[in-house]
Amino acid sequence: MIVTIIGTGLIGGSAAKVLREKGFATRILGVDNNPLHAATALRLGIVDEMADLQTAVETADLVLLAIPVDAALVVLPRVLDYTTQQVVADMGSAKSLLRNKVAQHPRRGRYVSTHPMWGTEYSGPEAAVSGAFRQKAVVICNAGESDADALTLVRDMYTLMEMRLLDMDAAEHDLHAAYVSHISHITSFALANTVLEKEKEDEAIFELASAGFESTVRLAKSNPDMWVPILQQNRDNILDVLNEHISQLRKFKSCLEKENYGYLKTLMENANTIKRIIK
Amino acid sequence: MIVTIIGTGLIGGSAAKVLREKGFATRILGVDNNPLHAATALRLGIVDEMADLQTAVETADLVLLAIPVDAALVVLPRVLDYTTQQVVADMGSAKSLLRNKVAQHPRRGRYVSTHPMWGTEYSGPEAAVSGAFRQKAVVICNAGESDADALTLVRDMYTLMEMRLLDMDAAEHDLHAAYVSHISHITSFALANTVLEKEKEDEAIFELASAGFESTVRLAKSNPDMWVPILQQNRDNILDVLNEHISQLRKFKSCLEKENYGYLKTLMENANTIKRIIK
Repeated sequence: MIVTIIGTGLIGGSAAKVLREKGFATRILGVDNNPLHAATALRLGIVDEMADLQTAVETADLVLLAIPVDAALVVLPRVLDYTTQQVVADMGSAKSLLRNKVAQHPRRGRYVSTHPMWGTEYSGPEAAVSGAFRQKAVVICNAGESDADALTLVRDMYTLMEMRLLDMDAAEHDLHAAYVSHISHITSFALANTVLEKEKEDEAIFELASAGFESTVRLAKSNPDMWVPILQQNRDNILDVLNEHISQLRKFKSCLEKENYGYLKTLMENANTIKRIIK
Repeated sequence: MIVTIIGTGLIGGSAAKVLREKGFATRILGVDNNPLHAATALRLGIVDEMADLQTAVETADLVLLAIPVDAALVVLPRVLDYTTQQVVADMGSAKSLLRNKVAQHPRRGRYVSTHPMWGTEYSGPEAAVSGAFRQKAVVICNAGESDADALTLVRDMYTLMEMRLLDMDAAEHDLHAAYVSHISHITSFALANTVLEKEKEDEAIFELASAGFESTVRLAKSNPDMWVPILQQNRDNILDVLNEHISQLRKFKSCLEKENYGYLKTLMENANTIKRIIK
């Protein structure tokens, strides 16, 4: 099967690697408006050749869109314009706006809205890894709006990638993603800024940085070109979560201010019940 | 060398394992007021025998205190009461109050104040691991208040454990620890509570939990019996950091409310500079 990857970075590059290894993709075309990424993807053998958008779509059996969610709003309609019988899937982290954008497109049925819940804090083709996606969840949004054959192909692809398939409405996805992915990035960015602010007056502060700190702050290395558009598109949900999170932090603050260590312990014990979910 | 471990949980148990493997400890005595932990530490061979506090201190060459920091305020003076030529070191995460507590003790010199910057979100002897502490920082506080031979023994021990030694005043340690360890725990606890709060009305929310979420929330599994006393003892520093962190989060909130995506990007780009410190 000929697969076209639009956006040969972390997500697109990793998908290309897995699909080639599994024998699903026999030929991989790349499209990338970043010449450096294009050259690197070619050099690393992630794609067999680079092509312009129209050629890459027309040549493909399957088109995967793995670009920032603001760019996807512009590129997906163009991809569908070039589509005849190809199957198209996007892999972005915010689904509602994109769904609305192509709702009236005559080839809407060829498109499958997906979000594989995998990523790292790194970006670009060099960040692409072979073992990506395995054992993680992938959300398929509004499956009923896609043609049956398109849906089957995309589901088979993610099954081959050993992902756990979930069906959701785009609005439901965006709400959940705000809670279990987007807010984590904001807390990491803000935690990094908190400590960097202090570092201005105290250079030695990072000599003590522990594994716990690294774990909570690593997402602060994430690419703003990818994350600004996600927060923008999912703004309403994220503001709700952010308000709730600030209010939860204020409870810890109030316990310390009032020296109410009994309630502080209750807050921590409640947080401990996350063990049910995160092994 | 005979080593006594007071508190045979995650930290004490891991230290016992490493010191035995390295041949530093030829015999290990354990003291634990939790009968279940005592039995488990014996069964797992972490300690050779359990003993009462007085016997364990009097028999030892080196006594390691690895108990919650509130308990340490009570137990360290008692340990020094039993001490003649033994060397005593604590491994707790807050140093100033404990320093003050034993400042006037006649055997103050036998005590070395330390904080190995390693841990996991798990607790108890079963959480103890062999490869612990390696490549991490260990802080020695107010080294000048310890006898030269006691200091040398403890430094040699941490060097053998392949740790990176740092010297600091207790007050300086507590300030830095608030920024690069204690605040990370509060943000994780609060993030867990944020999402658990939402889960009450929306059970499916965790189906999407990604690796990023797991990474930022894993410290929420940490033991409240250990963490309440740390936050209590380091209250003033932690309140400063928590206020700064809430103010950093409010900047993200304000950007979203005002749809100021240029400044949102600036905030993220600033956070990205954490790459200098966290590889």
